[in-house]
Amino acid sequence: MKFKLTIAFDGANYAGWQTQKNGVGVQQRIEEALSRIFPGTQITPLRSSSRTDSGVHALGMVAHVEIPGCRMTAAKLALAINAHLPADARVMAAARCGAEFDARFDAVGKQYRYFVWNAPAMNPLLRAQAWHVARPLDLPAMRAAAKFFPGRHDFKSLAGTRSYEMKSTVRTLWRCDIQRRGPLLTFIIEGDGFLYKMCRGIVGTLVQAGQGKIAPAGIAEILSRKDRRAAGMTAPAHGLVLWKVFYGRNRTNGVME
Amino acid sequence: MKFKLTIAFDGANYAGWQTQKNGVGVQQRIEEALSRIFPGTQITPLRSSSRTDSGVHALGMVAHVEIPGCRMTAAKLALAINAHLPADARVMAAARCGAEFDARFDAVGKQYRYFVWNAPAMNPLLRAQAWHVARPLDLPAMRAAAKFFPGRHDFKSLAGTRSYEMKSTVRTLWRCDIQRRGPLLTFIIEGDGFLYKMCRGIVGTLVQAGQGKIAPAGIAEILSRKDRRAAGMTAPAHGLVLWKVFYGRNRTNGVME
Repeated sequence: MKFKLTIAFDGANYAGWQTQKNGVGVQQRIEEALSRIFPGTQITPLRSSSRTDSGVHALGMVAHVEIPGCRMTAAKLALAINAHLPADARVMAAARCGAEFDARFDAVGKQYRYFVWNAPAMNPLLRAQAWHVARPLDLPAMRAAAKFFPGRHDFKSLAGTRSYEMKSTVRTLWRCDIQRRGPLLTFIIEGDGFLYKMCRGIVGTLVQAGQGKIAPAGIAEILSRKDRRAAGMTAPAHGLVLWKVFYGRNRTNGVME
Repeated sequence: MKFKLTIAFDGANYAGWQTQKNGVGVQQRIEEALSRIFPGTQITPLRSSSRTDSGVHALGMVAHVEIPGCRMTAAKLALAINAHLPADARVMAAARCGAEFDARFDAVGKQYRYFVWNAPAMNPLLRAQAWHVARPLDLPAMRAAAKFFPGRHDFKSLAGTRSYEMKSTVRTLWRCDIQRRGPLLTFIIEGDGFLYKMCRGIVGTLVQAGQGKIAPAGIAEILSRKDRRAAGMTAPAHGLVLWKVFYGRNRTNGVME
């Protein structure tokens, strides 16, 4: 049986989705749980919609897994996996899916959210999930800058240099909004795909626009330079959450139709 | 000079506001910071609007302190204290206040918020700040039950037995609302004063109403019994946040007028 899993995790204690030299990944923890629940069963490695960087969180990561001969309902499977996971990782939903479903290839887009606490003192309840920017940010300038990102662009200037090896660094963003609620800024970034550290490059650049270091109209120039040094800083990992992954034409995140 | 401080803290590592046999309180950490900033100065103990229980969080705790001969601006004072505090406690705002201001006696009310995550799997990003209730709650039943709390009542049935020693267990609630956003329930409870563990008794009782264990109309009977055993369970501390303290007729939380 094949299952689609929607996974959430607090990135603080993980090297990201995948296990790295410097730490364990969430993927490994879930695979360990599965091999304890189904001893002796040959289970395929989890295949996910995305890899996330070390320290980045997720609420709506999607992965699929094939468990031969599994007779559990999807809801039971989620409970069983969660019983074997540490509290910082959870299967939030599980559904049976067709043999043709592929969490990576079928994903048509993703939404990331980035949280900034913009006040002199950091909110201690958000300190593990938001970036503290103490000095006041110019929100209209940031919003003016954010308008340059949606559309089809070569995002080479915004991404980590590791992505330079990729076949194409062209991606399409549908949305780059900034919402404000008191001192809490939420960046909502949605698109068909994201390069390594691209979201954090966009947020770091927008924050520098809010500090007057980058002119809003300069974003077009930054994009056209196709050089990481043209853009602003990379925002820290702990403010970023992979919010949801879209499947199908309607960009829904529901169970397979 | 006298200052009004607005204080936030993550309650996880504290015995509450006050130091207890079993752990340190936030008050002590701030007093230690002040004595390091002003060595040799006789500083009055911090006097706060409220004591919070062990594990309870705060975003808008208010306290006052007298610092003889202090020439710092209030903003500088906040920065200086924060530089000496661990990351789980922060002075969010500071203001000079008149000699007559008393954070406890002048408080006319408080707002608490309690967070419940109502879904089979806990959200790992909220696990330290929300109570996980896995089975579906009947929100209309909870809201029907919540309507019985606002008003002037003897809250003896809802409070910890420690509060039985108090002169009066009569308090007035202005508000007891439940907001829902997906699986996240937010209880907003506002009133002129709160007995020991009273908020947690109200939330525990409302959750049991949502589980069908207590009928909404039974709340009137629970209140009239004036016995802790009449009500429902005490909700765990880590879901509760002291949200703000009201001063003055307009219940504002701003700087002293």
